[in-house]
Amino acid sequence: MNNEIYLVVNAGSSSLKFSAYQMPEKKELIYGYFEKIGMNDNFYSISTNGEKIKKNTYIKDHAQAVSILLNELFLNNIITDVEEIKGVGHRVVHGGDKYSDSIIINNEVMNTIEKLVPLAPLHNPANLIGIKNIKNAIPDAVHVASFDTAFHHTIPEENYMYPIPSEWYEKYLVRKYGFHGTSYKYITNAMKYILNKKHLNLIICHIGSGASITAIKNSKSYDTTMGMTPLDGLMMGTRCGSIDPSIISYIKKMKEQIIEETMNDLNKKSGLLGITGKSDLRDVEALADNGDKKAQVALDMYTWKIADYIIQYYNRLEGNIDGIVFTAGVGENQSRIRDRIIKKISKVTGINIDEAKNNNIASYKEQQTGVITTEDSKIPVWVVPTNEELMILEDTYTLTKSINEKSHTKIKR
Amino acid sequence: MNNEIYLVVNAGSSSLKFSAYQMPEKKELIYGYFEKIGMNDNFYSISTNGEKIKKNTYIKDHAQAVSILLNELFLNNIITDVEEIKGVGHRVVHGGDKYSDSIIINNEVMNTIEKLVPLAPLHNPANLIGIKNIKNAIPDAVHVASFDTAFHHTIPEENYMYPIPSEWYEKYLVRKYGFHGTSYKYITNAMKYILNKKHLNLIICHIGSGASITAIKNSKSYDTTMGMTPLDGLMMGTRCGSIDPSIISYIKKMKEQIIEETMNDLNKKSGLLGITGKSDLRDVEALADNGDKKAQVALDMYTWKIADYIIQYYNRLEGNIDGIVFTAGVGENQSRIRDRIIKKISKVTGINIDEAKNNNIASYKEQQTGVITTEDSKIPVWVVPTNEELMILEDTYTLTKSINEKSHTKIKR
Repeated sequence: MNNEIYLVVNAGSSSLKFSAYQMPEKKELIYGYFEKIGMNDNFYSISTNGEKIKKNTYIKDHAQAVSILLNELFLNNIITDVEEIKGVGHRVVHGGDKYSDSIIINNEVMNTIEKLVPLAPLHNPANLIGIKNIKNAIPDAVHVASFDTAFHHTIPEENYMYPIPSEWYEKYLVRKYGFHGTSYKYITNAMKYILNKKHLNLIICHIGSGASITAIKNSKSYDTTMGMTPLDGLMMGTRCGSIDPSIISYIKKMKEQIIEETMNDLNKKSGLLGITGKSDLRDVEALADNGDKKAQVALDMYTWKIADYIIQYYNRLEGNIDGIVFTAGVGENQSRIRDRIIKKISKVTGINIDEAKNNNIASYKEQQTGVITTEDSKIPVWVVPTNEELMILEDTYTLTKSINEKSHTKIKR
Repeated sequence: MNNEIYLVVNAGSSSLKFSAYQMPEKKELIYGYFEKIGMNDNFYSISTNGEKIKKNTYIKDHAQAVSILLNELFLNNIITDVEEIKGVGHRVVHGGDKYSDSIIINNEVMNTIEKLVPLAPLHNPANLIGIKNIKNAIPDAVHVASFDTAFHHTIPEENYMYPIPSEWYEKYLVRKYGFHGTSYKYITNAMKYILNKKHLNLIICHIGSGASITAIKNSKSYDTTMGMTPLDGLMMGTRCGSIDPSIISYIKKMKEQIIEETMNDLNKKSGLLGITGKSDLRDVEALADNGDKKAQVALDMYTWKIADYIIQYYNRLEGNIDGIVFTAGVGENQSRIRDRIIKKISKVTGINIDEAKNNNIASYKEQQTGVITTEDSKIPVWVVPTNEELMILEDTYTLTKSINEKSHTKIKR
């Protein structure tokens, strides 16, 4: 039996998530995650055949996590030999302006990810540790990097430049990069399939704990709300999004902070959490339902900011739009938030929500995908679940096959 | 002869601008400015009866500037006694969230302006120095403070709150205040008069070297693009406007700056200047006409950001808008910029520019005020010159009269 196993891996600074698939069937065989690697209360969890097992074992580093991962693949009869793993897709947050798509990892790619560490100091080092350890353990597989930034490579200059000293761009690479790119690529492909149309204009709202919106013009990213980093744009669970830049120097001074503290507050103690004390939208909605004034204001702020960007992109695309799509945790599940947002753009766009349809769609309900607007709505609004792992898997599979075909061609010569 | 003279004064850290008017005719009798007070190359300029005289005299401080000012009023026969000056209107940049309108200056007002210095460290101390010196020299006049922030007092909570830790608002007063309020009040009043309508929805674009846009709902400020400080919102001559907050900590680190240097760069070396090397839009247009790629991109960025906010406010007002108004240096004069902006919102709004009308309006042309859209445009776009001095004058006159009436009433009792 020619067993073809592919892994998709997402390495954080103290975590490692993975899924193993059988190809070309795209059948997920097992998935799991390691949490708090190197800490005393660490654990890992493995799910296979609908069964989830949580194990508490001290895991000192990513190398050990990878060896446990491989061991679990053997124990669960996913592989009988490491060579059965043909390709591994690695999620990498920041690819700078160099990569417009997923790419096979070589030394140059490793160096570039390393060089971009100052732009993504929390994520890229962790992604690199993941790649190094997994490459060591599975040396014969094709390793692919999928960048969160890659899909936004098509954003034009007038949209990616900031009005700052040009030296900051030329020397320090300060520009808009955009994130959630793998999700936007997945949703754009899904909409091509659903609408059976190749060239699409879309507004995709990836609203989760982190949140961004992308304007898709002719099936390519044209503009997006996150910027040089994922802090920019929308109000999020714990992130502030766009604010007056002066707030940073003012608060730093008033609170006598070092800048890292101020930035930490803006990344981890702001957004919904900053205003209401809760970062999860469900908790904020519950507070608002109980009459909490701050929570009510926060929900209004949160949904207005989304509506503001939707209408901005609606105008940038001259109203010529095939659909608006909601995806990710909030977008896929929070029907009341979708309702609030659509009502805030309804008058100008002629987009009308169908409340029954909207209420029927959530990831925990029978229906997960569909249109939530009325028949006479000028533009349909869709809910489509995203699947970044599947997108990385497909890219990895395609690149692995292409390299195998090439080497095959070489041998034939 | 009952001579009633009113002054309008704008004090900067090393400058002092003033105008003297005869009331109730609103006749400007003289205006002038002192520059580089306390520096070696300082001078002042006086204009009266269409004649402008520039004088180079060493002026050591604001007190001396005020005594020269009064002396010029005597020399030019504006007054024969200081008591003929009935009221003085002082421009004050930051009034915090306390003042919703111009107010007669007493000790409490002075203390409040002082308390707000951390929020406006460049402007409020200079404004205070101006007030103190002029009050000393003209003690019997009624002194009025007109705040740039006051007109925005009606902005609702969901629009003025930032998604930041709530303590920052409660303890450090971090919120959106908005600026150019005196200009917005003047233009709103002018439009009430022009359209002969009391309750107006407007989008007013105050586009000068500093630039902001305000959504006027029912003749009140509903939202505005500047924030806690005038750095927020639009791309400007030398200011960055809204950018990814992470850029500040990143650049501070990469350039090994102290935060004040980074903020200085964002205030004085960014915007049009940062990208093109020129802060004046006329110079940027000239560069772009000569094929300069950066200048072309900068013009596109500059006008897109204005279009983005216009469409955002258009949506917030549900398209129910009596007019869009361009004012201030760029708004009143740069017809090609107006043309670019309107074309960027034309498709969605049905607003169509009339190029001939647009080209005919500028402050240096015969026509300064008028509509620049076609007859069939869904919403008219106006050019209306602003006059902040006149607005401050009117507020000062009204408050001075009210206090005189009150004391008159008291005496009668």
